[in-house]
Amino acid sequence: MTANRGNDVLNGVWCPALMPVDDKLEPDVPKYIDHCRWVLEEGCHGLVMFGTTGEANSFSVEERIQALDAAIDAGLPPERMMVGTGCAALSDTVRLTRHAIDRSALGILMLPPFYYKGASDEALAASFDRVIEGVGTEDFRLVLYHIPGVSGVAITPALVDLVAERHPETLAGIKDSTGDWDHSKMLIERFSDLAVFPGAENLVAAGLEVGGAGCISAGCNVNASAIRALYDAALAGEDVTERHAEVERLRLILQRYALIPAMKQMIADAKGDPGWTRLRPPLMPLSEVNAKALMADLQSLDFRLAA
Amino acid sequence: MTANRGNDVLNGVWCPALMPVDDKLEPDVPKYIDHCRWVLEEGCHGLVMFGTTGEANSFSVEERIQALDAAIDAGLPPERMMVGTGCAALSDTVRLTRHAIDRSALGILMLPPFYYKGASDEALAASFDRVIEGVGTEDFRLVLYHIPGVSGVAITPALVDLVAERHPETLAGIKDSTGDWDHSKMLIERFSDLAVFPGAENLVAAGLEVGGAGCISAGCNVNASAIRALYDAALAGEDVTERHAEVERLRLILQRYALIPAMKQMIADAKGDPGWTRLRPPLMPLSEVNAKALMADLQSLDFRLAA
Repeated sequence: MTANRGNDVLNGVWCPALMPVDDKLEPDVPKYIDHCRWVLEEGCHGLVMFGTTGEANSFSVEERIQALDAAIDAGLPPERMMVGTGCAALSDTVRLTRHAIDRSALGILMLPPFYYKGASDEALAASFDRVIEGVGTEDFRLVLYHIPGVSGVAITPALVDLVAERHPETLAGIKDSTGDWDHSKMLIERFSDLAVFPGAENLVAAGLEVGGAGCISAGCNVNASAIRALYDAALAGEDVTERHAEVERLRLILQRYALIPAMKQMIADAKGDPGWTRLRPPLMPLSEVNAKALMADLQSLDFRLAA
Repeated sequence: MTANRGNDVLNGVWCPALMPVDDKLEPDVPKYIDHCRWVLEEGCHGLVMFGTTGEANSFSVEERIQALDAAIDAGLPPERMMVGTGCAALSDTVRLTRHAIDRSALGILMLPPFYYKGASDEALAASFDRVIEGVGTEDFRLVLYHIPGVSGVAITPALVDLVAERHPETLAGIKDSTGDWDHSKMLIERFSDLAVFPGAENLVAAGLEVGGAGCISAGCNVNASAIRALYDAALAGEDVTERHAEVERLRLILQRYALIPAMKQMIADAKGDPGWTRLRPPLMPLSEVNAKALMADLQSLDFRLAA
């Protein structure tokens, strides 16, 4: 295995934490903290606070700052957090990044500005330049967030090169949420000094074999211990065929549904707390029919969430 | 011509005002106010404060509120403003909408939440429901903003139906920025009780013939008087062949370039103020080569901006 040099500190299994909301659809911070604590206890190395799974961009800067402050003040460890900070507005990205650095977050997971489409690599690199300039320090770990199917804006290898050239001390990693192994493999091999995270648990083992950093995977919200065990076994060079297959069984079921609502539904059922099913529009809870079908699918798998 | 019933108050030529920025890339509010005043003097019926042309989503909620307050406090008429308020985050959209209503804006131009893609019409309708609920009143004029090429999220006719059904007193119009005449015509004819605005001046005359509301067009930032004259002539039933062709000559030149940077370049040149060329990343100024080519194109047209 090729270790990513210097950025190994980021390696591991990261949970992009779901954000429960109250009946006004405002962040339910106590529930959020409980959930974050639980996925760490279940084995995640760290938490991504405000990724796509956490409905990050459905919340205001103030809501995000308050939830992060509350989580850290409640004892959740910032040295085990990456904070999602990339917004459409430059000023918002600067503010969230500065705040996360001030709160000693281990890393920053940054989307490119995502309203305008078709920006050149040079323009996106200029965006990252301006963010770093606005934040006022190069002294943080920047993980670029490639999720073009949602954001509509790609982090191309050429863009990674530009950022690496200009901010060699800052750029630390890439999250690749394409779900495409060939793409993840290319990034891992091409950027062997960066921590490159596939965006799902099915690529953990294959990724580790070529020098990948682990995963940042939504599935960790409901299946953290199995994903962590898979990671550990793969890292130890064990045969992971059965562990991989077990993790895949759940992932493939969840894939039949809208992933974020489906995971919230699972937690709601496990906890007997229907409030957990809520999402902020434009995301919507599963229909009653789909919620029942998901429960039936999970029973057929004999999967029980210990939330 | 079929008048759009009740929403005629919105009819006209609207300028989605460019936002000049200072050397920190922060809104240059005095320049913004001057520019807004000028396009009104040049003949625009109204101003769209914070549309795509105004780089709305590149600015924070606070920056947008401050600029709008300053513009109104400086005497710009809110009764001639539509305010763009649609953000990725529900709470941001609510806050901007509430503020614009409190400042007596004539209308609200609202993007759907644009981070997540593939939301159903029902989910997007729920977003608008939640915004209106959050704002706490149905008593405003809502113009839905269809610009799928940029936002990645469409306002489908079925979605318009849902919003119209649930908020008949609020829904007042649609901006169609597809640039596709067949699509604009379909919307104008299908939603004859709404003010339907094509997103460019080339569809003003054709639109008015079937009951369209005018236009909300970026080109008004640099060619307002000619666009207004075209609108007036078309409304009066005059032959607009030559006026239309004149307006088209400039529009087709601008189309060769990135539109927003090109218009900022034109204003910078006209005013001898290079600061006007600045944009917030991910938008970028024209390259020097393109800036010169644009100037040559404009000279060949004998077009002079009287900014």
